[in-house]
Amino acid sequence: MKNTFGQSLQMTVFGESHGPYIGIVLDGLAPGIEVDDNFIKEKLAQRRPSGAISTARVEADEYIVASGVFNGKTTGTPLCILIPNTNTRSGDYDKTGRIARPGHADYTAMCKYHGFEDYRGGGHFSGRVTAALVAGGAIAIKALSDKGIEIGTHISRLSDISDRDFSDMSEDIKDLNKKTFPVLDPDAANAMEEAIKEAAKDADSVGGILETAITGLPAGLGEPWFDSAESILSHVLFSVPGIKGVEFGAGFDGVCARGSEFNDSFRNEGGSIITSTNNNGGINGGITNGMPIIVKCAVKPTPSIYKKQESINLNTLENSDLEIEGRHDPAIIHRARVVVDSVCALALYDMLAARFGTDFFMK
Amino acid sequence: MKNTFGQSLQMTVFGESHGPYIGIVLDGLAPGIEVDDNFIKEKLAQRRPSGAISTARVEADEYIVASGVFNGKTTGTPLCILIPNTNTRSGDYDKTGRIARPGHADYTAMCKYHGFEDYRGGGHFSGRVTAALVAGGAIAIKALSDKGIEIGTHISRLSDISDRDFSDMSEDIKDLNKKTFPVLDPDAANAMEEAIKEAAKDADSVGGILETAITGLPAGLGEPWFDSAESILSHVLFSVPGIKGVEFGAGFDGVCARGSEFNDSFRNEGGSIITSTNNNGGINGGITNGMPIIVKCAVKPTPSIYKKQESINLNTLENSDLEIEGRHDPAIIHRARVVVDSVCALALYDMLAARFGTDFFMK
Amino acid sequence: MKNTFGQSLQMTVFGESHGPYIGIVLDGLAPGIEVDDNFIKEKLAQRRPSGAISTARVEADEYIVASGVFNGKTTGTPLCILIPNTNTRSGDYDKTGRIARPGHADYTAMCKYHGFEDYRGGGHFSGRVTAALVAGGAIAIKALSDKGIEIGTHISRLSDISDRDFSDMSEDIKDLNKKTFPVLDPDAANAMEEAIKEAAKDADSVGGILETAITGLPAGLGEPWFDSAESILSHVLFSVPGIKGVEFGAGFDGVCARGSEFNDSFRNEGGSIITSTNNNGGINGGITNGMPIIVKCAVKPTPSIYKKQESINLNTLENSDLEIEGRHDPAIIHRARVVVDSVCALALYDMLAARFGTDFFMK
Amino acid sequence: MKNTFGQSLQMTVFGESHGPYIGIVLDGLAPGIEVDDNFIKEKLAQRRPSGAISTARVEADEYIVASGVFNGKTTGTPLCILIPNTNTRSGDYDKTGRIARPGHADYTAMCKYHGFEDYRGGGHFSGRVTAALVAGGAIAIKALSDKGIEIGTHISRLSDISDRDFSDMSEDIKDLNKKTFPVLDPDAANAMEEAIKEAAKDADSVGGILETAITGLPAGLGEPWFDSAESILSHVLFSVPGIKGVEFGAGFDGVCARGSEFNDSFRNEGGSIITSTNNNGGINGGITNGMPIIVKCAVKPTPSIYKKQESINLNTLENSDLEIEGRHDPAIIHRARVVVDSVCALALYDMLAARFGTDFFMK
Repeated sequence: MKNTFGQSLQMTVFGESHGPYIGIVLDGLAPGIEVDDNFIKEKLAQRRPSGAISTARVEADEYIVASGVFNGKTTGTPLCILIPNTNTRSGDYDKTGRIARPGHADYTAMCKYHGFEDYRGGGHFSGRVTAALVAGGAIAIKALSDKGIEIGTHISRLSDISDRDFSDMSEDIKDLNKKTFPVLDPDAANAMEEAIKEAAKDADSVGGILETAITGLPAGLGEPWFDSAESILSHVLFSVPGIKGVEFGAGFDGVCARGSEFNDSFRNEGGSIITSTNNNGGINGGITNGMPIIVKCAVKPTPSIYKKQESINLNTLENSDLEIEGRHDPAIIHRARVVVDSVCALALYDMLAARFGTDFFMK
Repeated sequence: MKNTFGQSLQMTVFGESHGPYIGIVLDGLAPGIEVDDNFIKEKLAQRRPSGAISTARVEADEYIVASGVFNGKTTGTPLCILIPNTNTRSGDYDKTGRIARPGHADYTAMCKYHGFEDYRGGGHFSGRVTAALVAGGAIAIKALSDKGIEIGTHISRLSDISDRDFSDMSEDIKDLNKKTFPVLDPDAANAMEEAIKEAAKDADSVGGILETAITGLPAGLGEPWFDSAESILSHVLFSVPGIKGVEFGAGFDGVCARGSEFNDSFRNEGGSIITSTNNNGGINGGITNGMPIIVKCAVKPTPSIYKKQESINLNTLENSDLEIEGRHDPAIIHRARVVVDSVCALALYDMLAARFGTDFFMK
Repeated sequence: MKNTFGQSLQMTVFGESHGPYIGIVLDGLAPGIEVDDNFIKEKLAQRRPSGAISTARVEADEYIVASGVFNGKTTGTPLCILIPNTNTRSGDYDKTGRIARPGHADYTAMCKYHGFEDYRGGGHFSGRVTAALVAGGAIAIKALSDKGIEIGTHISRLSDISDRDFSDMSEDIKDLNKKTFPVLDPDAANAMEEAIKEAAKDADSVGGILETAITGLPAGLGEPWFDSAESILSHVLFSVPGIKGVEFGAGFDGVCARGSEFNDSFRNEGGSIITSTNNNGGINGGITNGMPIIVKCAVKPTPSIYKKQESINLNTLENSDLEIEGRHDPAIIHRARVVVDSVCALALYDMLAARFGTDFFMK
Repeated sequence: MKNTFGQSLQMTVFGESHGPYIGIVLDGLAPGIEVDDNFIKEKLAQRRPSGAISTARVEADEYIVASGVFNGKTTGTPLCILIPNTNTRSGDYDKTGRIARPGHADYTAMCKYHGFEDYRGGGHFSGRVTAALVAGGAIAIKALSDKGIEIGTHISRLSDISDRDFSDMSEDIKDLNKKTFPVLDPDAANAMEEAIKEAAKDADSVGGILETAITGLPAGLGEPWFDSAESILSHVLFSVPGIKGVEFGAGFDGVCARGSEFNDSFRNEGGSIITSTNNNGGINGGITNGMPIIVKCAVKPTPSIYKKQESINLNTLENSDLEIEGRHDPAIIHRARVVVDSVCALALYDMLAARFGTDFFMK
């Protein structure tokens, strides 16, 4: 495997920031799934930079369905979505292209690809590639939703500002999916936007934590070894640029508790089996237990900053200072939200289709 | 995929806690690797319970090399290691077998396998299966070591007791690999052992955080999308029972920093490219950068506790109280250490063999 | 991939002819499938050499179910079957072990494994490993049969002696599965057995063609590209030792026909869609069409013969003559029959489980 | 797996005959491979219909490199090639689109995709998709050639007309790769072209056998079980439309020989290990032995014929006659040649990169 992931639904991404197209191939989608252009556009819009808190490079994100759709519905054969790169200003990058940007893949790409990599704008490592993931993910999000499975993500923390916890999870998810800046508490949202602007003013950037809730999943998904539900989800989440930590349920904070506090008691509530707490984040022994999956992702501060930084020249390997120009985000966490939703949806689609068969999502 | 993981090195585990054997098949090992029985036994001993801080069930962990070794060296064909289950007291489990143990896979296994699962002692979900991972992992750990790649893990936190940070990483790793209770600071070790005994006295259990350092890796391992180094490592780590969080470098704590603080500056130090800090944990853009990989795992408190717990009867689905008997660990984190080392070693072996060819580890 | 095959059902084989065990792991079997020991033994007996037409080495083929079965039924977790090697007379092989046997893997194994391979009795390349495939295959054959899918194979040709064609396919399959020497026409069977004895007398060996019919499959299995039904079946069939050709339906003989003769007309017969001929062997465009799959395998003459042969010494690479001792089959085609049935059954189980979900075969 | 194949080099195809694009993604190509536009065009030209012996639909096969190439060389990241569909006359198909064409996937596609498939021009099952395989294959053919590995295919038989056998294999391969109609003996070529015209005149079609030689491969490629060299090659070959049989070396004809005749004696000729005959087609025990791989493919007569045929209506499932209009090939075997070369090259690239590492083909 490599740029391909999945068993029953295989997803393959391709493309460079400044090449002709980025794209995704989804192979294994059930036939008959409605491809809702407005929904795809809505999701792409959630990823698109906007306003003072984002880069000035705004892409139209016009996409082309190259294959796999007929009369507005999936055919069941590989669905390829292409997104042309239109607003590329390579000039911005040429000057700094050969000094490794700290926190970026410039140096590691050179080690891996021996200098043959397309370095312009981060090339294949560019966050731009996530637009393809979102376009494809939108189809999976919709298909899951039609089966009663909903995904919602909020910025639970930005720097040291915290959002409120989920309360009415179903309402909160609905609410978040309408927002461009996905924060539950409006005051926290304002404070976070301020913090981003502050960082931008300082030629700097911020990071945070995304918390995702997934409701409506049946119990029994995942495998005991290697392909635990946590393994599959973390696998796709750690391929989202900037994510450096993934935890389920109580996660790292939970380790201070004792077993008697941490264990989630099973209860029969009116015929439904639930747990009274959800410290395990909906997963026991690698298998979903029917409770919401709760997963948090640590998103590091955006590495592209305007401040002068120490680094090396990639041609000479000599120490050199770097001052980045171009257009960069002081924060990407709000834009990363829909990427997280997308990869989770694609991975869950895969798990459900493997479990229940390739026609499970056919309508 | 399922109970099989890997591309160039494929690992498959099988077995139930109370069945005849547990085992592992490693397919894709280079020919000519020495299989060092003493080293395997040493690693199995690190996993084996011992003393007051562990379960009273002590297995001999005698293993049989069923295939793939000839004249003391790997043949290059699939290597199967079998570990017979000898010390199984099924009687202990029968009484509670049908009340779901909170935090365990009893309920989710029933949802997935519809009651056909071997529930005795956790069946296929038992931590016992990790003995097979360790036996196979020992071969990978040794092969990596012969290439200058070393792995060391300590308990960086147990409940609220912290170990000191890595200082001389090379010495610390050597030191840890000699210890049964892998803590760098002797005072912290004592405090942790006390805390475990305390929990045991309370019929309770504790969790903690394992921090792993991997040194000597070349830059350039991993893939930009889906198969990032973080994705691969988290995938195998989240299949280790009890792990609920995985973070690289500064991880969750790093999100409060600004980009200018978080970014690791590249430096040329006497011809070697290093970074002045290691907040990215040795990985940029999913690809190793030559710095040590630093990964932390949140290990939840052991779910098997003697305290009375609320739960459900798995036959009737009615609410029922549970009082566990049998032999259980008040902490597994010190035993999980070598499992973490093992799955990391197996995954890194796979990545290196994919990159440099199947004979890379041949001697 | 390597010694592992499959997506929803993954099969992994291991073992050497003269090592402690050979075995198979089947991961992805539905829970609740009855494991019928008598049926497994019956299938192993069909593979076992017997009488004047086979090698004098007769193995008991006692097997151990190491995991994955509880109360006589599959658990849904990996099922491992071990077969101990008991009747190994390594002395036979040592003398000739270092002269490459023509038609065998001695030389290619050395090229691949650099001399570390276990060469005794063919090591991992030994036909002995097929006993594990048959033991595992028996479970799949039974599971398919319970869904109305039947597999039958006959020796359609041995040297220049031909069996009659299938006529009443359902009866023929039943008949073949009862026979040790699977030939439909008793006269042809006698002639073939004579030809084998004749070859044995001449210290030589014979080959032939196996024809397999698979009935009861639903239409719609297989994939348009890469994973066509033919691709999947040929993939597993070409891993059976000695098979050098695979053809579906009219196969190679069909290429002389014109399109108007070759095309199979679709017909509605009383509500069932059938084709009036079956030159496509039940597969159109890589997808099953509901007609029986007809697949033929060319089995080369057994390479182990007693006649003196020219070859090379594997240590010195000098030209050397070879006179094989030990115990060898003048024909393996009748024993290969159940191996062919087994790998087809395992591959079809995989395709059906991928299509209809992991519980499809649960009873 | 599905429309994706490979381990170190993963190939994914997508597209429908009458959709906007067909395409291929190649993931795992080494960085630094020169992408030679003229060579790709030359290979596409060999697949393109031409003259009296082919369909009147001639596509420009203009292709777009969407990703993975920078400054004329591969970057090492996924390379996507798009081929726009320009010359689509859907009107031709609408009339007959709902009567299943015998020998085609119309009926099986409906069974698999439940009527959601894009049926126009065969949709995703169209031979048109092979243009993408050829464009991608050209890169692999070139990369192999730069390592001294050459692939050549001739029509060894068309209906009952046979070409001469390979003699000077190296010269023959060079010769074939220059020809549009790949036949070694000019008289046989003329006779074959005549036979195709004859069939066309009769509103009918012909099939034949392609024989491929692959020279320059190292010994030691392939795996003992499941992923034998024959398994891998047959897997990709059986995904080429119209191929119904694959055999290696002496194949089906070889089964009449005795072991003493069939076995290929190893010989040391001036320091090189060769075999005196090549009945095993360059593969022993699933592993290459350094001799040329010889593989033959049975190509069935093109199913699209103008003669009236019996079939069923796909909407009503009633028996209906079919008279195909549109533009169809009386033979595709000469066009299939380069598709066979392409999939072999891609599969061999994968095997070599898995064995020798991802940079093996870097220049």
